[in-house]
Amino acid sequence: MLVDLRFDSGEVPLVTDLYELTMAASYFELGFNDRACFGMSARRLPLHRGFLVAAGLERLLEVLEHFRFEPSVIEYLDSLKLFSSRFLDYLGSLRFTGDIHAMPEGRLFFGQEPIIEVHASLIEAQLLETLVINQIGMASLIASKAARCVIAAHGKKLIDFGLRRSQGIDAGLIAARSSYLVGFDGTSNVLAGRRYTIPLYGTMAHSYIMAHDSERHAFEHFVSHFPNLSTLLVDTYDTVRGVENAAAVARTVQKEGFNLQGVRLDSGDLASLSRKARKILDDNDLKQTSIFASGNLNEYKIADLVGAGAPIDSFGIGTDLVVSADAPALDVAYKLNEYAGKPRLKTSEGKLTLPGRKQVFRAIGRDGGLAGDIIALADEDPGAVSKEFTYEVSDVVSLMSVQMKDGHRVMPRPTLLESRERFQQNLARLNLKCKELTAPAVYPVAYSHALEDMLMKQKHEAALCSAG
Amino acid sequence: MLVDLRFDSGEVPLVTDLYELTMAASYFELGFNDRACFGMSARRLPLHRGFLVAAGLERLLEVLEHFRFEPSVIEYLDSLKLFSSRFLDYLGSLRFTGDIHAMPEGRLFFGQEPIIEVHASLIEAQLLETLVINQIGMASLIASKAARCVIAAHGKKLIDFGLRRSQGIDAGLIAARSSYLVGFDGTSNVLAGRRYTIPLYGTMAHSYIMAHDSERHAFEHFVSHFPNLSTLLVDTYDTVRGVENAAAVARTVQKEGFNLQGVRLDSGDLASLSRKARKILDDNDLKQTSIFASGNLNEYKIADLVGAGAPIDSFGIGTDLVVSADAPALDVAYKLNEYAGKPRLKTSEGKLTLPGRKQVFRAIGRDGGLAGDIIALADEDPGAVSKEFTYEVSDVVSLMSVQMKDGHRVMPRPTLLESRERFQQNLARLNLKCKELTAPAVYPVAYSHALEDMLMKQKHEAALCSAG
Repeated sequence: MLVDLRFDSGEVPLVTDLYELTMAASYFELGFNDRACFGMSARRLPLHRGFLVAAGLERLLEVLEHFRFEPSVIEYLDSLKLFSSRFLDYLGSLRFTGDIHAMPEGRLFFGQEPIIEVHASLIEAQLLETLVINQIGMASLIASKAARCVIAAHGKKLIDFGLRRSQGIDAGLIAARSSYLVGFDGTSNVLAGRRYTIPLYGTMAHSYIMAHDSERHAFEHFVSHFPNLSTLLVDTYDTVRGVENAAAVARTVQKEGFNLQGVRLDSGDLASLSRKARKILDDNDLKQTSIFASGNLNEYKIADLVGAGAPIDSFGIGTDLVVSADAPALDVAYKLNEYAGKPRLKTSEGKLTLPGRKQVFRAIGRDGGLAGDIIALADEDPGAVSKEFTYEVSDVVSLMSVQMKDGHRVMPRPTLLESRERFQQNLARLNLKCKELTAPAVYPVAYSHALEDMLMKQKHEAALCSAG
Repeated sequence: MLVDLRFDSGEVPLVTDLYELTMAASYFELGFNDRACFGMSARRLPLHRGFLVAAGLERLLEVLEHFRFEPSVIEYLDSLKLFSSRFLDYLGSLRFTGDIHAMPEGRLFFGQEPIIEVHASLIEAQLLETLVINQIGMASLIASKAARCVIAAHGKKLIDFGLRRSQGIDAGLIAARSSYLVGFDGTSNVLAGRRYTIPLYGTMAHSYIMAHDSERHAFEHFVSHFPNLSTLLVDTYDTVRGVENAAAVARTVQKEGFNLQGVRLDSGDLASLSRKARKILDDNDLKQTSIFASGNLNEYKIADLVGAGAPIDSFGIGTDLVVSADAPALDVAYKLNEYAGKPRLKTSEGKLTLPGRKQVFRAIGRDGGLAGDIIALADEDPGAVSKEFTYEVSDVVSLMSVQMKDGHRVMPRPTLLESRERFQQNLARLNLKCKELTAPAVYPVAYSHALEDMLMKQKHEAALCSAG
């Protein structure tokens, strides 16, 4: 069965823009296939973002280990009548044999910092451009958005409810994974639960209530099937009456030794309704029944609700999280930084790139906090770069590490829980002011002296490249 | 090889929220599995949208024809310890045996109008909720955004360049397909080209130029491999000098009988640069060499460029198109409208639904234009409803048709080109004022008298359902 929604592993090399293939064909004919280094970074942070979170690397590395053009794909490319059979033969035998230097998942990063570098033959590295941006970009976008929800929630439970509004199936999977990575408690997305062993959560839909002739009966029925696992949706008709109906049902099952897990508010003034709901539940001796809120939530609304002391225990977040509604894309680019041992840059208006293979060094202050970063050349001595920090530093760490060497992983694959742990440690060390949800403080990022020098020199060289 | 980016057909039933499954289990235990009708509609049009475009139906229907829970999926669900083995056995044998009434792809629709109704047993219809919203919602979202670009472009060529910034792989496919559906000329997305037979377009990336020591040499090389198919990217260093370099190369190959297809501007002031580029090309007798523009474009910027008379022939649109940046989600809901022969509605604050099985009737005016719609009950007599239009009407068409009956398609699958044709005819008949890119006129949509009556009656009933 070949269904359109499917995506086969063999189709991975076609997740690309046509020009990657025409350029590769041209490189092939020219014999241009020396070692290249491409680096990916976000040109700038989206509005209101004080930091970004690296994500998506593990899915990408897995694909690179298996990257190959299968015969049916070669056949399709042949049908385009753009490529020589010599080049297509070459593609058929191509594997990814390069190195990947990257920030591990869960690490915080900032504007202009490379988060992944691909060191490979020019053709291999060029062919990955679209896929790398698509996957790392989307995963990091949502991890960054979800991290803001985690900050806003101040320890309350967060569940990803976004699958229906995610932009397709892959987006739903990435959103569930990225939000769990940064501390969400689970997802409603069953496929993501299976793929990534993320805890699954669910309540009930209005349709369940509406299929009954009475809300009370609907509640009784659902609780009878999931006695300790029911979160009853109380806003189908009148929310306050819904909570009263839920409380009545809860009292009945309490006598049989069961606890109603929660009630869910999905519309209206959540601050006021949650107070009314809490009072009704408490008045019925249902202190352990929690209040779950949903309905067009995002980090700003959650911060308001938490700030107002609304007695809400868990938030289900959908649309705004999974499409990163206030910033639905990261302005990331994947640029050639070095080819055949020579640094490269472009000088397009507003899109200057940073030449050379790079590393990012992060200073840890005396208080253990993240003090600032320096983007440096990869072969710079960390000790020397450390001296360029203009503030007191107790330690300096390099942020990108070798993840793949000659096409093979060199580090054990971290579990999602390990990456989650890394993120939590990172976030805890970030200055509170950089975590503000609006107008956050700008985290200090500088270029090393050697990078500044190279940039200057290469701008000069670029002018020569341009000469007719 | 099982790679994480894959998505197998067998995983389709897991593209769901957990609650669909727990509700289905509860329905199963209760023996609640009478005929249900769920309808999906957009609660309102996003900001600046005067209309929406139905898309995504064909991908969905194909999935429904093959919908089944495979043994490995049942095994996973069993591991959740939520479901009885009787229910899991039932799921294992479940197929989609219902009817689908829907607007075909390419049809225009408006707020509150049902675009798809699922008529099936309650369990079957409930289990599809998340998938239907995810797929039809995303495809219609992008078709609607792309249609705005088509309006703005006034006949200039449009290419989808968004794969790298699309929210995952499925989103990239949907975006390429939906934009082609509404009149784009092609896509850079090779996988979409293969899947949907969409024309592929590509130019070159900055890296190609940067891998050379001189822009001129880079152009010469590329043109030597694709002599009639080269669009040279001219902004790597200095755009005007880039156009001069391209023109020099074009004049050389012209002597050999080849034509440079185009130059591509990707940054800077596109209106001014395109004029300079056109002059340089014309001065070099390169009138047939076209100008391609890209770089953070959207319908607003295209309208400005076209309005200013910028001599740009083709636009490549990426991020803003594929994530629908100014409205990255549609507020669509999939709601139970009828169960066991009885109309249903919910009265949640701000989220009132319309009860009953429905049809949408569209009035065609004397000038052949779309005059207005009436949302009616499905069994209303079209002739009677026609009399409710308050303006002169020359014809009335019903917008939803039976697409599937008892789980089988009843109509031949339209080709993408046929749907594209339908859209063009639809759009041509829409009032110009509804096509404005900002503050468009509101297209008239009314309820039929019978639907109004039912709504009133059901609001009253809902109050009874709510009574404890």
